[in-house]
Amino acid sequence: MLFENIYEEIFPFWGKISDADRDYICQNSHLLTYSKGKNIHNGEECSGVILVRSGSLRLYIMSDEGKDITLYRLHKGELCMLSASCVLDAVTFDVFVDAEEDSECCVVSGPAFAAVSKRNPDVRIFALETAVSRFSDVMWVMQQILFMSMDKRLAIFLSDEAARTGSDTIKLTHGQIARYMGSAREVVSRMLKYFADEGIVQMSRGGVTILDKERLHKLAF
Amino acid sequence: MLFENIYEEIFPFWGKISDADRDYICQNSHLLTYSKGKNIHNGEECSGVILVRSGSLRLYIMSDEGKDITLYRLHKGELCMLSASCVLDAVTFDVFVDAEEDSECCVVSGPAFAAVSKRNPDVRIFALETAVSRFSDVMWVMQQILFMSMDKRLAIFLSDEAARTGSDTIKLTHGQIARYMGSAREVVSRMLKYFADEGIVQMSRGGVTILDKERLHKLAF
Repeated sequence: MLFENIYEEIFPFWGKISDADRDYICQNSHLLTYSKGKNIHNGEECSGVILVRSGSLRLYIMSDEGKDITLYRLHKGELCMLSASCVLDAVTFDVFVDAEEDSECCVVSGPAFAAVSKRNPDVRIFALETAVSRFSDVMWVMQQILFMSMDKRLAIFLSDEAARTGSDTIKLTHGQIARYMGSAREVVSRMLKYFADEGIVQMSRGGVTILDKERLHKLAF
Repeated sequence: MLFENIYEEIFPFWGKISDADRDYICQNSHLLTYSKGKNIHNGEECSGVILVRSGSLRLYIMSDEGKDITLYRLHKGELCMLSASCVLDAVTFDVFVDAEEDSECCVVSGPAFAAVSKRNPDVRIFALETAVSRFSDVMWVMQQILFMSMDKRLAIFLSDEAARTGSDTIKLTHGQIARYMGSAREVVSRMLKYFADEGIVQMSRGGVTILDKERLHKLAF
């Protein structure tokens, strides 16, 4: 009954599949809690479709040397499809998922979700659309890092400003920072949000405060 | 009649949609030829679903400064969905498509394809699966460049070997190159293929020949 209520809200296909399929998904669901920092998915097996009930998850890719790049985060009510490689055959790259805070999640087993999606085009479309919409997020991060070194350029700008003014709070709007950097406001805002999500800065009214100087300097040099 | 025959082979959904929808797609199709080097799609408008009949297309992303990174190529019989942004709402990033050789393509107008896909889940699933399968290709390229600088490392290795042996042909197998570089054979093979597609090297039996020294050096330094 619990899962039934949750899924009714989250899955747009819920009303369109049979009672048997709904039962099947609920019977193959688990409510799991993860402590902050726990690795939930390491790209190898099919960890299932993960729905965040509370807390937040971080999705990232990792090199052999352990360097990682955050692709995006999942918050309450958001779904992770990339952890369900057995649902989406076309997804052949590995992502990692960690709990970034203590998190409670509903997890639908991958094979169960895959079986229902085979019988129901609406479920398949939902799974694919969820994956494709993240494709765009990932491309944005990649483009900024590959082309513009926007992460590096913003880190340098913030470090320089902090040194120049002698304060960890940079009292400039996103638009002003963009003009100083010769970039667009939307790009600066989105990259600042990325930094904030990473815990490197904190945004406040009319300013940006540096929280993690060490990481900022690592990015800058 | 011409389009009918082509689409019957390419579109797995062709037998599952109505006569009217088949006609509608054919009536909104064009056979277009592009000369080598011609830009076909620049990320702005919806250029439609492009099917390569002969020649080849290159898909890439581009920075404001004009630097570009090849994501993948499309050959005879392959389909470009990312050029049809009006079909896939979830795709919000811009790609560019150029004809890499003189190419002949069938192009289905984006709005027509979108209208049919709205009425037919099979069409929608096909469009989404085509997009998601490219997501994996793109992630591979990104990971190699971001993490490993595999493009740079391979360029350095090939340049060094050519200088050391005094020959533009490096007589090593992919497996041998991988061992020298401390990498995996699959990774080296795939990156060599990427270099070959870019015209930087040519692969031959038991060796790799450098074709474009200037680009190789640019990558290496």
